[in-house]
Amino acid sequence: MAIETVSIVGVGLIGGSFGLALRAAGFTGRIIGVSSPRTIEAALRRGAIDKGGPLEEAIPESDLVYLAQPISRILEVLPEVSRLARAGALVTDAGSTKREILERAGGCFAEGPFFVGGHPMAGKEQRGVERAEADLFAAATYVLCPLGSDLPVTPIVDEFVSWIGKIGAHVVLLPAEVHDKVVSWTSHLPQLLSTTLAASVGKQVAGEDLLRVAGPGLRDMTRLAESPYEMWKDILATNRGAVEQALDRYIADLQALRSDLGSDEVEQKFRSAGQVRLALTTKP
Amino acid sequence: MAIETVSIVGVGLIGGSFGLALRAAGFTGRIIGVSSPRTIEAALRRGAIDKGGPLEEAIPESDLVYLAQPISRILEVLPEVSRLARAGALVTDAGSTKREILERAGGCFAEGPFFVGGHPMAGKEQRGVERAEADLFAAATYVLCPLGSDLPVTPIVDEFVSWIGKIGAHVVLLPAEVHDKVVSWTSHLPQLLSTTLAASVGKQVAGEDLLRVAGPGLRDMTRLAESPYEMWKDILATNRGAVEQALDRYIADLQALRSDLGSDEVEQKFRSAGQVRLALTTKP
Repeated sequence: MAIETVSIVGVGLIGGSFGLALRAAGFTGRIIGVSSPRTIEAALRRGAIDKGGPLEEAIPESDLVYLAQPISRILEVLPEVSRLARAGALVTDAGSTKREILERAGGCFAEGPFFVGGHPMAGKEQRGVERAEADLFAAATYVLCPLGSDLPVTPIVDEFVSWIGKIGAHVVLLPAEVHDKVVSWTSHLPQLLSTTLAASVGKQVAGEDLLRVAGPGLRDMTRLAESPYEMWKDILATNRGAVEQALDRYIADLQALRSDLGSDEVEQKFRSAGQVRLALTTKP
Repeated sequence: MAIETVSIVGVGLIGGSFGLALRAAGFTGRIIGVSSPRTIEAALRRGAIDKGGPLEEAIPESDLVYLAQPISRILEVLPEVSRLARAGALVTDAGSTKREILERAGGCFAEGPFFVGGHPMAGKEQRGVERAEADLFAAATYVLCPLGSDLPVTPIVDEFVSWIGKIGAHVVLLPAEVHDKVVSWTSHLPQLLSTTLAASVGKQVAGEDLLRVAGPGLRDMTRLAESPYEMWKDILATNRGAVEQALDRYIADLQALRSDLGSDEVEQKFRSAGQVRLALTTKP
């Protein structure tokens, strides 16, 4: 076994779930958590980590370093992590945008430890290790973004990829720019539509009695509106161009639908949408 | 017991669920289904009705007539139903828009049977009596729209309202115009956002592999895109003004959010949206 010690930096929903998932999948090595004392305590109680420790002690001991903080913290900490990590170790992250993180990593992972960007497409609208789950990654897509055109060929990288499979996720290898464009459509736009829908309905439909004149559709369509801005601030800041483009194109499509009301075009749009939905819900 | 015989006209998801729900809530009278022979057969198999029969025979025998067809069919059949129904009977419907149905009913229910418009805020993206469920209405809002300013005071209307409570739903009394405006925001706009999202993502994200680079958020936000256009055609046709206004205001809000990207305004919108979401998910 090449990976004997793992550091999880930022033991929240994703970091905590990664620890629980590794354990549930049979990982028998050490898992060190780097987080605030309160989070470390909660993570120990949940069994997501074996011990807590400061960055300066945890990183040099680790074969795999898993950065699961907010994107802005990952960007800040990357240079220090690259200095602390030992030669041959793998540093990876779980940030929701990849272009800026890969640019930063490219500048500091020239030699010694390896870096591979990651984005597990899993999560929920609540945060914290208290909500972590061993099966959070089950059936999820797990994007990996290499610094070069392909993953480094080392036993540790191979083993990390095999652990991703063992925790139930499905690896997709993508350049960071392609990842960021795709998620602007599949994740960032849906979030902004949900937030705007909840805010607009709240303005237009006065009173909680009338708000209850709603079916299950509105509940689905506003679930993402529970997501905390703290997380989205970094995502929107590091993918602004793609998000603006997705918003512009979506607004144009919505305006076209509005003009088409009453014509057969609307039926065609419902049929296209139904086909895309089918593709989204069909297992590979 | 004032209601001994119920006719359900259109035994699909809603009509079938109403029959199953009445039975599960302890209704011991007769339930007659009026639908195509194939649907009647399926409804009998599900136990949603006791027998099938043609409109001309079923309506005159009934204390309660429950119209659960598409809106355009309800509009067509109302004059005939008003002629066939006996004095004192209650005719109600389950159509998703109410203004046009109430206008039509106002013209033909001057005397004899009573009419009260209804809209159970329950449903799912699939149709048909095969998908009907006895608990479809559990915890749902059930809007009633009287022809006048209040419900008619008759034992049959009282008993119908009490059955709505027994099947688990919560009655809200609204004028038809208010109902149609509220649902343009809480139901019709969310549907069009979901349909447009699925269609736009399908255009912009090429290939099923990239479509899978998505988290649970996109699945929530596109569930409604499975809804059949056949149902939405009538809804959009009978509530076009309100739907256009909701679309225009939502598009303006989305454009404002796009302009606000990078500013503190976005945080404020996430907070407002989170509060509305909380109100939507808090039990009364």
